[in-house]
Amino acid sequence: MLDKTDTHLEALLRRRKPGYSLEAPFYTDPDIFASDLDLIFGRHWIYVGVEPDVAEPGDAMVIDIGKTSVIITRNDDNEVRAFHNVCRHRGARVLQDYKTSVGNLVCRYHAWTYDLDGKLLFAEHMGKDFDAGCHGLKPVHIRSLEGLLFICLSDDPPADFDDMAARMAPYLAPHDLKNAKVAFESELIEPGNWKLVMENNRECYHCAGNHPELTVPLFAYGFGFAPEELDDMGRLEAQRYADLVKASHGEWESCGFPSQMIEHLDDMVTGFRTERLPLDGAGESHTGDTRAACRKLLGAINDPRHGALHFWTQPNSWHHFMSDHVVTFSAIPLDAERTLVRTKWLVHKDAVEGVDYDIANLTAVWQATNVQDAELVGLCQEGARSPAYEPGPYSPHTEMLVEKFCNWYVGRMRAQGAR
Amino acid sequence: MLDKTDTHLEALLRRRKPGYSLEAPFYTDPDIFASDLDLIFGRHWIYVGVEPDVAEPGDAMVIDIGKTSVIITRNDDNEVRAFHNVCRHRGARVLQDYKTSVGNLVCRYHAWTYDLDGKLLFAEHMGKDFDAGCHGLKPVHIRSLEGLLFICLSDDPPADFDDMAARMAPYLAPHDLKNAKVAFESELIEPGNWKLVMENNRECYHCAGNHPELTVPLFAYGFGFAPEELDDMGRLEAQRYADLVKASHGEWESCGFPSQMIEHLDDMVTGFRTERLPLDGAGESHTGDTRAACRKLLGAINDPRHGALHFWTQPNSWHHFMSDHVVTFSAIPLDAERTLVRTKWLVHKDAVEGVDYDIANLTAVWQATNVQDAELVGLCQEGARSPAYEPGPYSPHTEMLVEKFCNWYVGRMRAQGAR
Amino acid sequence: MLDKTDTHLEALLRRRKPGYSLEAPFYTDPDIFASDLDLIFGRHWIYVGVEPDVAEPGDAMVIDIGKTSVIITRNDDNEVRAFHNVCRHRGARVLQDYKTSVGNLVCRYHAWTYDLDGKLLFAEHMGKDFDAGCHGLKPVHIRSLEGLLFICLSDDPPADFDDMAARMAPYLAPHDLKNAKVAFESELIEPGNWKLVMENNRECYHCAGNHPELTVPLFAYGFGFAPEELDDMGRLEAQRYADLVKASHGEWESCGFPSQMIEHLDDMVTGFRTERLPLDGAGESHTGDTRAACRKLLGAINDPRHGALHFWTQPNSWHHFMSDHVVTFSAIPLDAERTLVRTKWLVHKDAVEGVDYDIANLTAVWQATNVQDAELVGLCQEGARSPAYEPGPYSPHTEMLVEKFCNWYVGRMRAQGAR
Ligand code: FES
Ligand code: FES
Ligand code: FES
Ligand SMILES: [Fe+3]
Ligand SMILES: [Fe+3]
Ligand SMILES: [Fe+3]
Repeated sequence: MLDKTDTHLEALLRRRKPGYSLEAPFYTDPDIFASDLDLIFGRHWIYVGVEPDVAEPGDAMVIDIGKTSVIITRNDDNEVRAFHNVCRHRGARVLQDYKTSVGNLVCRYHAWTYDLDGKLLFAEHMGKDFDAGCHGLKPVHIRSLEGLLFICLSDDPPADFDDMAARMAPYLAPHDLKNAKVAFESELIEPGNWKLVMENNRECYHCAGNHPELTVPLFAYGFGFAPEELDDMGRLEAQRYADLVKASHGEWESCGFPSQMIEHLDDMVTGFRTERLPLDGAGESHTGDTRAACRKLLGAINDPRHGALHFWTQPNSWHHFMSDHVVTFSAIPLDAERTLVRTKWLVHKDAVEGVDYDIANLTAVWQATNVQDAELVGLCQEGARSPAYEPGPYSPHTEMLVEKFCNWYVGRMRAQGAR
Repeated sequence: MLDKTDTHLEALLRRRKPGYSLEAPFYTDPDIFASDLDLIFGRHWIYVGVEPDVAEPGDAMVIDIGKTSVIITRNDDNEVRAFHNVCRHRGARVLQDYKTSVGNLVCRYHAWTYDLDGKLLFAEHMGKDFDAGCHGLKPVHIRSLEGLLFICLSDDPPADFDDMAARMAPYLAPHDLKNAKVAFESELIEPGNWKLVMENNRECYHCAGNHPELTVPLFAYGFGFAPEELDDMGRLEAQRYADLVKASHGEWESCGFPSQMIEHLDDMVTGFRTERLPLDGAGESHTGDTRAACRKLLGAINDPRHGALHFWTQPNSWHHFMSDHVVTFSAIPLDAERTLVRTKWLVHKDAVEGVDYDIANLTAVWQATNVQDAELVGLCQEGARSPAYEPGPYSPHTEMLVEKFCNWYVGRMRAQGAR
Repeated sequence: MLDKTDTHLEALLRRRKPGYSLEAPFYTDPDIFASDLDLIFGRHWIYVGVEPDVAEPGDAMVIDIGKTSVIITRNDDNEVRAFHNVCRHRGARVLQDYKTSVGNLVCRYHAWTYDLDGKLLFAEHMGKDFDAGCHGLKPVHIRSLEGLLFICLSDDPPADFDDMAARMAPYLAPHDLKNAKVAFESELIEPGNWKLVMENNRECYHCAGNHPELTVPLFAYGFGFAPEELDDMGRLEAQRYADLVKASHGEWESCGFPSQMIEHLDDMVTGFRTERLPLDGAGESHTGDTRAACRKLLGAINDPRHGALHFWTQPNSWHHFMSDHVVTFSAIPLDAERTLVRTKWLVHKDAVEGVDYDIANLTAVWQATNVQDAELVGLCQEGARSPAYEPGPYSPHTEMLVEKFCNWYVGRMRAQGAR
């Protein structure tokens, strides 16, 4: 039976076997989950949404991470701000709805009233000795990377966010996310630990057998393969795919779309990966017919054939930037065995629903894929509960990035002094 | 992260900051909740219902407090008795329904049969050596204060119940609760710790903004106020209210209705508070039109304008006695984050529904108010879960009695040796 | 409050009072429940189903015990095999449905493919260094006793299964279970600890008052009784019943149906009990009219009047073998306070529904009885939660076998070094 003393987690981290999935407690133990929330989600940059979620001053969005509830809002100077969603009087949650629009932030209980910078403007009956200046909403660190919003719950956020931002901004800028709008969003509770959700996202070994919709726009040779298993025809197609990637990179970069792979998944605190890759068929978008789902393209893009730029961040996000739309995913741990995945589809803010795009067509591929992935994650969670589970080997050809996710996780836990 | 060793609770109690709400673990920690059940609900007088709940011999009511289930019944000598609801054979729960009427108390499993005094009358097949005399239902202490029933799960109940009873009996007697009937009762599970439910009840700072129905019969100046925030008109109205209270007390006391405030909320083991206060409008009752909801008045009362006598007990009850009806509330902790509030509306036992009173009119104000309070309690519970929560200041003008509730709680926990 | 240190369970086991029900933590404490799963359900032979559940090669059934999920299947050599239901790649559950039929065992995630003997046949992209021979499904011990399937999760199963099997086979053989089929099965979650489910099964003291259907075919004097409580008429009837049992045993044994009681409920590791007993009325079956529910009798039986053979095993099964059908029960602990009871009704495999038997008639008595027992178990669970619960005395005349169940449990826990 699991020895849950503090040294246990430390021992589990220390004896992690490279190239193999994690030991079961990492997926099932509520104490390790609490450490994950504290050391990973409490001390790193967590992707939570996009600037278009709070497009106008007074727009507000509530994000819950573990037991922490955060208000993200836009102040009257058009700056995005974040605060703890806890009244400084008797601690009531200030905002309840996921998204609202407000003038000030008013607590319902006794009407304490805060402005959009968190300052306490008004509190009745508190007497002469009360100092309103000490009772503003507590701020939370927030950063926008070309419209992607990251918060950090720690007082001392990782500094290398700036390095990532400097490298990534040129890749994202052409898609002009700040001038996009959320056309649709979905919430899906996947029945597994957040790390199983991330591992599932970090490989496409499972795609051929499970994602009939997603494998239409994606090239199978992009998933990785064991070279020795290829026949002559396979070798030819693999080479053809490699050539296409190289040619596309050259073409796109020459017209201002950075495309080359950058990968710091396990050698930065704010780990990330990006690459722009060609798509199959018409080559335009993650849609059922591989064509753009939105007639009005993003930013100043005028050719729909720019493939798909993927952008991943540790510990909890992945994004696909295409010429016509962006799909963006944030994974939020709920408990040791459940994870919320929020997916948003964004199009140009001037695109008109029913004219320029159709929601069903825009969202079909990833709505289906998310549900398929949730089921797979659930199978692994059920397996991890069994005493018969033991870490299994990752494929050296298709699961290298799962391995890097685990490396990052184990490294960050140890760096934070997990015990 | 919370250190849940035994000394932790002791340390939290010791460092409690006067004038501020409690630290978060008091509202969220299951271990402290267990201590609350043990030290507060296991060792003090707990209000559970009224004599009219068990009006006739053989009437029985089941009350669950934490893991303890208690049968309250009336024996053939018309005495109210209480027993643990656990069969002495293999431990089956004896009564399942909230309220029933029985001849004897018969366990369904193997038909062991106890009389209304808990004595084992009959047990088949137990053999010659079996001593039925040692296998009666275990008794629980129970007391009636003018028809309000209090139980104590401890073998050694607080002795000052008698002091409270002696002080309170003259206030309650004119309403003759023993000759009332329960016209309606409701159960509401509030989504918060029982202390948040009690704190909510102990102030009306939140009433103006949240209770449109309740603030019709209540005078706003009775909620407390910061004098320095009053303008000239406000000062005049506050003075007018103070004069009305004084005049009403004189008038009511002269005709046999004790009215002056008595308050021992934090200086007695069995803490309580009472006062008879005037009502607004017609001044008769907690109703939408401030008029009596029942034509037949309680006891021998013949004038409906007797305001409302409130009676509070620590740790778990509040009551409003009016000329036409009584509303009585008992708060029962379910777990660290949920509390059952039972509300009963009582009228004269000879009043006829549809003729003398209408249930919807009788219950409208407090049904609405309970739901509003439950929502506010839920907001505080959600806030208390956040690591960003910290104790906030009580208003010295409107939250003095919340402070006294916390004082009583902290004092009683320390007196019981909480560790 | 319960001291949950390791020595606690040891102390509770050591001080167990003979002749009395267990102390409350045995029924309510999640830590003791975990020990039960580990020491009882993890190290003894657990009854899980029947050979007809996996009648053909490729048929598979999934059985979950605690956190362990097991696949039971029949291979191409017609042998019943059992494996842990955990993929050796990244740990996904391999089979999800309770019952299926498959060619190979294929993991849905990345299509690793195992044959019906658990051998890994196929795994893509794993590279040159991967050794498929080390990555087969992990086997689980399984034995068939005349068609009743028992598994043991331990590497070192109790050896005395063979002794039990040798004694029991002649009793069971005439009913030819391997050539029966499951006509109906039900799952019922009883709201109590698995030991309360078993204790309930081990006595019929509760039958007269709770099982109107079951007491039609059963003789009341078979339930046990206190001789000193009998009047003259009672003594006569008791003697008449004893004579009937003796005469029936003689008759049945002479025509090849072993009938005499064998009982090793608390003196074998694989404890069991059996006896063939006469039935009331027509004397044929556990049905509403006491007549056979299936016209085609089991095996080569040609006379329906063979009473009912009961067979009990520690820790989790009971079975009734009649001439026309078999009812078989397996109790699987879900958590400290919930137990799954699976009931299967089997008839001759060539019997035709609607012609030879009617499901409603076949299942009526035990469907009703199960629901009644679940309710009684729930009453005891609720009682055991109360601090007022204390172990009560077993009847020396009707609860001897409950006592033996507790003896076996306590003895096995101590023998496994429970602490
Ligand atoms: S709790 Fe927010 S105003 Fe009182
Ligand atoms: S448990 Fe109450 S009579 Fe047996
Ligand atoms: S987890 Fe089974 S094939 Fe990958
Ligand atoms: Fe996927
Ligand atoms: Fe209120
Ligand atoms: Fe039964």
